Amino acid sequence: MHRTQTRRVSVEEHRDKVRGLLAPLRTPDRVERLPLLAALGRGLAAGITAPLDLPPFANSQMDGFALRSADVPDGGAELRVVAPVPAGAAPAELAPGTAAPIMTGAMLPPGADAVVPVEQAVPDSFPPPGQPATVRLPAAPAGNFVRDAGSDLRAGEPALAAGTFLGPAQLGLLAALGFTEVPVHRALAILLVTTGDEVVEPGSPLGPGKIYDSNGTLLEASMRQAGLAVTRTGISTDRPEELAALLRRHAPAVDLIVTTGGVSKGAYEVVRQAMDGHDVEFAPVAMQPGGPQGIGSFDGVPVLGFPGNPVSCLVSFEMFLRPVLSELFGSPAPRPVVRARLAEPLASPPGKHQVRRGTLGPDGTVRLEGGAGSHLVHALAHSNVLIQVPEGTAALAAGAEVEVWML
Amino acid sequence: MHRTQTRRVSVEEHRDKVRGLLAPLRTPDRVERLPLLAALGRGLAAGITAPLDLPPFANSQMDGFALRSADVPDGGAELRVVAPVPAGAAPAELAPGTAAPIMTGAMLPPGADAVVPVEQAVPDSFPPPGQPATVRLPAAPAGNFVRDAGSDLRAGEPALAAGTFLGPAQLGLLAALGFTEVPVHRALAILLVTTGDEVVEPGSPLGPGKIYDSNGTLLEASMRQAGLAVTRTGISTDRPEELAALLRRHAPAVDLIVTTGGVSKGAYEVVRQAMDGHDVEFAPVAMQPGGPQGIGSFDGVPVLGFPGNPVSCLVSFEMFLRPVLSELFGSPAPRPVVRARLAEPLASPPGKHQVRRGTLGPDGTVRLEGGAGSHLVHALAHSNVLIQVPEGTAALAAGAEVEVWML
Repeated sequence: MHRTQTRRVSVEEHRDKVRGLLAPLRTPDRVERLPLLAALGRGLAAGITAPLDLPPFANSQMDGFALRSADVPDGGAELRVVAPVPAGAAPAELAPGTAAPIMTGAMLPPGADAVVPVEQAVPDSFPPPGQPATVRLPAAPAGNFVRDAGSDLRAGEPALAAGTFLGPAQLGLLAALGFTEVPVHRALAILLVTTGDEVVEPGSPLGPGKIYDSNGTLLEASMRQAGLAVTRTGISTDRPEELAALLRRHAPAVDLIVTTGGVSKGAYEVVRQAMDGHDVEFAPVAMQPGGPQGIGSFDGVPVLGFPGNPVSCLVSFEMFLRPVLSELFGSPAPRPVVRARLAEPLASPPGKHQVRRGTLGPDGTVRLEGGAGSHLVHALAHSNVLIQVPEGTAALAAGAEVEVWML
Repeated sequence: MHRTQTRRVSVEEHRDKVRGLLAPLRTPDRVERLPLLAALGRGLAAGITAPLDLPPFANSQMDGFALRSADVPDGGAELRVVAPVPAGAAPAELAPGTAAPIMTGAMLPPGADAVVPVEQAVPDSFPPPGQPATVRLPAAPAGNFVRDAGSDLRAGEPALAAGTFLGPAQLGLLAALGFTEVPVHRALAILLVTTGDEVVEPGSPLGPGKIYDSNGTLLEASMRQAGLAVTRTGISTDRPEELAALLRRHAPAVDLIVTTGGVSKGAYEVVRQAMDGHDVEFAPVAMQPGGPQGIGSFDGVPVLGFPGNPVSCLVSFEMFLRPVLSELFGSPAPRPVVRARLAEPLASPPGKHQVRRGTLGPDGTVRLEGGAGSHLVHALAHSNVLIQVPEGTAALAAGAEVEVWML
């Protein structure tokens, strides 16, 4: 028997419930080791300690001459040029009174402690290798244009924390540290079911009273982009026994069930009805759009029941599922949050947290795209941010500062 | 024979050159039609016109009663309840003096022009279907809680412009319009070659003077994330004839060659040397890091020669290749640009456009991650923005406003 609450819960309370629902999925057997590039977009399952210094050895920051700083007085000095040090070589000790041509990234010869860029030398080019030559160099302090071993990161220090989202830069760091694979959270398997007698598959004829299913595409794309493994069933009709049978068939193979539609207070609420006998709660969330929400489990599998309008679906995903996945599994990356100024006024139901869609410009102002209606999928497709209007706000003037989440 | 310029070109000039290099790849034979979900992350190759109205028909925004607004005077009226209209049904005309229970999203019956939410009705629930009932409803203006046909988008209007990046919301819109596939730009095929005698594959032993190749992982991950198809060769040594042979072997199969390293003014610059006899220009760009850049073509295939340090590689990709791909092919999505305030002062070479790495907080301030050095891959991995310091700036104080690009 499902539970219907009438007290509205806040956005934060509902997000806490979603976290509580999914936290048990963070288990050791759901961790896998993947080659670095296969781990792109995943979350790190364990902290990584640097096994070596970065850089691994003191090296030159410039093409120039390696020298002993004590050899050159303030007025400069003429030094004998010895064999050049290409990148990748293990150079011999630099004899006192000599200078070695050194390339960017090449190891500083033992004894050398500074580099003078070739542009500051006289002559300002490298002599042909193998021929006797001297070079006049200005004084340089110890450490001049030298990248010390460990100056970016020391062996033994934490390199990346557990839960880090693995993008190009994080994978690049792991490669620099010599890793070839990395422990990550396994992609969760999601069963995505859209429902509704009014909903038909794109490509089919559209009869009167029917609309094309955009929720399925919208949410599957959002979930794939977030690194989830998605199974789609066809669209479920509004017959509860049909939906229940479909869920029973697929539930054993997935980590989470997400449905759309049928969670409101109308006369035909297929998801509510199909959940009868299961531990699923239908508590309205003080949010617009996306207020009606179901949460619980079906045959022991966690289930989230999103409302049926496309904008409500997207908002439900972005406000609840996505941030909780980021927090628990390090993937997807959290949405960047910035402050922006409204380009125009807006009204909001004071008892609800309103989520509007908008376009943030490079000047830091945000324009509304369409009205508050949850069916405005064209307006949504032209938005790049979600505008957060907290509970307790009835109106905001043009110029008001708001929090926006970048899509 | 390659050309070496000494005049520094600006960031914008070099980006123009990259655009000129890649624009010829935008050809009709490089357009393919993909199913919607396979098109996730691609750029739209042709504008899309709406084939139908969105919504396709006038429908109810609430669970409530559909009525003729003229039937209810200011004080309200008692109406006879007729058969309910579920979503997906094609309802019969609403007789004058009656009200039809209607579900959210259901088609407004012909004759009806307004909806009163069930909470405002007396009684405030739907009567059991099939039994005679009346309901008392307050007056409602025509259009009350009605979503008009075409109010989001009208048939014949532009839905998405050519060049639009296809994320979840854009694909959701295409599904709502009934499309099952979409014309997109084919993913460009990239040959990525890292070079350097000092560079070894992660997982191998690290001898003195050697470093692990992070550029390959960093750039391949960036390119994959940007929707490109990447072929990696092994690391090329610093022998130009070896690199040239490797490029000749792979060039016929790719759209673009990207190399790292060997483009500076040192004594061993393998990419410069391997490009001898090809139309490749090595003009320093007034940018830090990432100043040394090669651009041109090798055996008729466009080539970009990025510098050898990891941060320089990432900055080259983000400043030149990524924005040009966004512009020409609609994919990847452009980096969001926002204004932020520096949390700390910085110094910059006034003759160069400096790109620093930083962390943007939700309060709109940006902290520097590491110094200006282009080897700081650990600091890069902890950054979420690139901070743009334009040419002509020698220093910025804490609190100064800067443009940041969100990674």
